[in-house]
Amino acid sequence: MGTVEYAVHRRTAERVRVSADTLDSPVTALAEVPRWLEDYHRAHRFHVEPIPFDRLRRWSFEPGTGDLRHETGRFFSVEGLRTSSDADPVARVQPIIVQPEVGLLGILAREFDGVLHFLMQAKPEPGNVNGLQISPTVQATRSNFDEVHHGRSTPFLDHFIHRPGRRVLIDSIQSEQGDWFLHKRNRNMVVEIDTDIEADAAFRWLTLGQIRRLMLQDDLVNMDTRSVLACLPTAHGTPDDGDDSFPAALRRSLYGETAPLHDLHAITSCLTDVRALRVLRQQSVPLDDARRDGWERTGSAIRHRSGRHFEIMAVEVTAERREVASWTQPLLRPCSQGLAALITRRINGVLHALVAARSEVGTLNVAEFGPTVQCRPDEADGQSPPYLDRVLTAGADRVRYDVVQSEEGGRFYHARNRYLVVEAGPELNTGCPPGFCWATFGQLTELLAHGNYLNVELRTLMACAHASY
Amino acid sequence: MGTVEYAVHRRTAERVRVSADTLDSPVTALAEVPRWLEDYHRAHRFHVEPIPFDRLRRWSFEPGTGDLRHETGRFFSVEGLRTSSDADPVARVQPIIVQPEVGLLGILAREFDGVLHFLMQAKPEPGNVNGLQISPTVQATRSNFDEVHHGRSTPFLDHFIHRPGRRVLIDSIQSEQGDWFLHKRNRNMVVEIDTDIEADAAFRWLTLGQIRRLMLQDDLVNMDTRSVLACLPTAHGTPDDGDDSFPAALRRSLYGETAPLHDLHAITSCLTDVRALRVLRQQSVPLDDARRDGWERTGSAIRHRSGRHFEIMAVEVTAERREVASWTQPLLRPCSQGLAALITRRINGVLHALVAARSEVGTLNVAEFGPTVQCRPDEADGQSPPYLDRVLTAGADRVRYDVVQSEEGGRFYHARNRYLVVEAGPELNTGCPPGFCWATFGQLTELLAHGNYLNVELRTLMACAHASY
Repeated sequence: MGTVEYAVHRRTAERVRVSADTLDSPVTALAEVPRWLEDYHRAHRFHVEPIPFDRLRRWSFEPGTGDLRHETGRFFSVEGLRTSSDADPVARVQPIIVQPEVGLLGILAREFDGVLHFLMQAKPEPGNVNGLQISPTVQATRSNFDEVHHGRSTPFLDHFIHRPGRRVLIDSIQSEQGDWFLHKRNRNMVVEIDTDIEADAAFRWLTLGQIRRLMLQDDLVNMDTRSVLACLPTAHGTPDDGDDSFPAALRRSLYGETAPLHDLHAITSCLTDVRALRVLRQQSVPLDDARRDGWERTGSAIRHRSGRHFEIMAVEVTAERREVASWTQPLLRPCSQGLAALITRRINGVLHALVAARSEVGTLNVAEFGPTVQCRPDEADGQSPPYLDRVLTAGADRVRYDVVQSEEGGRFYHARNRYLVVEAGPELNTGCPPGFCWATFGQLTELLAHGNYLNVELRTLMACAHASY
Repeated sequence: MGTVEYAVHRRTAERVRVSADTLDSPVTALAEVPRWLEDYHRAHRFHVEPIPFDRLRRWSFEPGTGDLRHETGRFFSVEGLRTSSDADPVARVQPIIVQPEVGLLGILAREFDGVLHFLMQAKPEPGNVNGLQISPTVQATRSNFDEVHHGRSTPFLDHFIHRPGRRVLIDSIQSEQGDWFLHKRNRNMVVEIDTDIEADAAFRWLTLGQIRRLMLQDDLVNMDTRSVLACLPTAHGTPDDGDDSFPAALRRSLYGETAPLHDLHAITSCLTDVRALRVLRQQSVPLDDARRDGWERTGSAIRHRSGRHFEIMAVEVTAERREVASWTQPLLRPCSQGLAALITRRINGVLHALVAARSEVGTLNVAEFGPTVQCRPDEADGQSPPYLDRVLTAGADRVRYDVVQSEEGGRFYHARNRYLVVEAGPELNTGCPPGFCWATFGQLTELLAHGNYLNVELRTLMACAHASY
C-alpha cells in the first residue's frame, strides 16, 4: 500500500472508530430499537409452513437428473456435487445449493453530527427462528437486479450499482457457507451518502456502537450484517500501555502499530501452502447421483440416512409485504447446531487470533481461513478436531464472547451456530499445527479488503470480537 | 498494510532494484548466456513429432464422454466446458484443459556480493518453437511432488515445500490462460537461500537486470519466469523530477509515492463491479458434447470446423534427459498468433497502465484484469475490441516494447503472442469505458501479492515493461 492509500485507509478507520464508540445517538436511541423491531414485526409477520415438495409452485425436480430448480432457471438450484481430496480420495456425492451469481449485501452510511450511522433494515426471512433480524440496507440477488420477481424493486439498490462517483468505504466479494453452497459469493459493500433519503419504517440509522451492542443478543443481527461489518477497517488509537485488559489488547491488535508475530506475507503464505498442497476435486453431477452415498428423497425432504449433515425441505411463506405476497421455496435445514470458536492470545501485549485454513466441499479456491474450531459437536464421529476440548472446557473467566447467531434465513431453516471467543493464557504455545496461524485482528481486517481469505464463520467471529469491547 | 510490514516490503523492493540495475556479474557474465544455452541445447535436444491419437501411450479417449485422459487420472485431461454469460446467453461447449491441482513455479534467490541473483534453468519443452527457454529453478506439477513419473525427482523442489523457516520473498497463486484452461493456477514463489548449493549445467545464477535484458529477445524467457518475476516488488528511488523520459515515468510509477489517478480500493472496486454484474456460467460436460458446437475429432486433431480458435493434437517426444526419456502427450495448438497490448500514459508525470477486466471461459472468479487489448487479430469476426486500432497504428516513437514471447511449452504447441507496450500522449482521455481502469505499476504489483487479480498476459506485460528501462 502506498503512503497515500495508507492515509485514506487510516482516515476511514478513524471515522469507523468514532461510530463504534457512540452508543447514544440523537438519530436513533439505542433504547428505541426493541420497540422498532417489535412494532415492525407485528405489522409484517411471516407465516412459514413446511410443505411437501409436490406443493412447491414453479419449483420442480428435473427429470433425468433429479436437480431441484426454479422454472425460470434463476434464484438457485439444488444439485449434486462430487468431491474428493487427498485426505479422503474416495469420491462422494452430496446435495449442494448452486447459486453462481454474485449477489449484493450493501449498507448505506451517512454522517450525522460527525458520526457515521448505518442504515439498517428490519427484515423477515422464512428460515429465521424469530421472524425478523437486523439486516443490511440491501440484500439483493442478481435476480433482484433484473427485477425478475415482477414485484416491487429493491429499495436503495441504485446507490450501489451503476452509480458513478459513489463514495465506497468497503467493497469486496466474500464467500458463504462452503459446506452448503458451491462457490457462493456475495459482494459486501458500504457506500457513504451525504444527502437526505426517504426510508420507511423498515429502516433505522444506527451507529456501529449500537449495532455491536445488539450483537451481544442471540439471533438478532443477521449473518449478512455481520459479514459486511467485519470488513470495516477500524482504528482505536494507541491505548494506554498500562492497560492490560482484554479490550486494550484487542485495540492494540486492530491498530497494527505493534509488531505482530508474523508479517502479512507469512500469513498469506500459510494459506497458499494449503491451497497448493491440499487437493480438492469438485464436479457438478446430477442430484440423483447422491443416492448411492446415502442421500434419500422422501415426499418432503432430501436427507442423509445417517440423520446427520442437513436436509433439503420446502416451505410456503405468506407475508403481508415482500417482493411478492406469497411464495414457496426450498430451504436447507442443518441437523444440529454448529460451533465456531476462536482462540485468542496476547503476544507482546497484542491480541492474536488462531485461524485455521479450512476446506469445505464448495470452497472456490481449495481453502480459506476459518475459526480455530468449526464443527457440529453433536455429529462427532470419533475424532475430535484440534483445540475442540480446549474451547469447550475454557473457564468462564476466559470466555470473551458466547452468543448463538443465525445463518442466512433466505436459504437456511433455523440454522444456528454458537459463536465463542476464548482468550488463552501464556500456557498455550504460539507454535501450532500445519494450516493454523496466529494473526492480529488488524491483519485479518486487511485481508478482508480482498475476497476468499476469511470464511463467513470467521467473519462473524471478527464482528463478534469487535462487539466485546 | 501496517507500518512494520511496509518497511519489510520496501526493503525487499530495494534489494530487487539493486539486482535490476546490475547487468555485469562476476557470477555469470551476460555475454556468457548465449553460449550456455547453445551448449546445453546441443547436449539435451528434444525430438518432437506430431503423431495420430492412436499412437498416444497411456492416454486415451474415455468411452462414453470422449474425454482425453491419462490412465493414472493425473497430469491433466481434455474435457468439455459449457459456458454462457449475460453478454452471450446461448450456452456453448468447447474443449478445455482441466488440471485442477496447483503446481509450483519457484525461483531460488541468493545474494552474491550484495546483489540478488536468481537461479534460472535452461529447460526444453515439447511445444517450444526453439527447443529450450530460460525457466524458473523449479516447474513442478503436483504429480511431480508425488513423483509419479517414477523417474528422477525434481531438483530443488524441497526448498519450496515442507521446509519450515524458508525465507519467502514472494508467494502467491496466479491464474493461467483462461481461454484454454479451466480454473488453472500455479503457485509463484521466490525463496532466498544463503548457503551453497550444487547445480548442474542446466542452471545459472543471473541478476534481474540480466534476465530483463534477455526479455528483449523473442521466445527466450519462458512464460513461467515472466509470471514469477512480474510479482517481485521493485522500488526505484525518487527519480530526478526534471527527468521526463519514459523510464523515469515508469520508475515513479513503481515507487508509488506520487498520487495515482485512483486509489487501490477504487481499482479493486472496478474489478468487483465486473465480477458482481457480469455473469459467467461454467459447467464441465463430456468432451463429446462439443461436437454440436462445431468441434470435430479426426485421427490427429480435435479442431473447430471454422479453422479458428485452437486444436488439440498429440506429440511423441524423445529426449536424452528428462524425468523420463521418451513420452507421448497431447498439446494445444492455437490457430493464430495472439496480441497482448498495454496502453500506458503519463498522468501527473507518473506512468499509468490502462487495464481491462477480462472474462475468459475458464476464469475462476468471473474476471481478472488483463491487457488493454488481448485478441487474435487474424481471427477477427467483424467487431474490433476497444483500443485495437490505436495500438496497431501507434507510431514507432510511441512503442516502448514489441517482442514476441512464447506461452508454456509443456501444454501448448508453438503458442506465441506479440507483446506490445505503447505510450499514449495527453490526447488520450483518462476517462475510459466500464471495465477499464488506469493503475500505476506500483499498484498492479501490490495486487500481485494476492491471486487472481492479473491474468497471465498482463503479468507478462508487467515483466516486459520492467525490461524497458
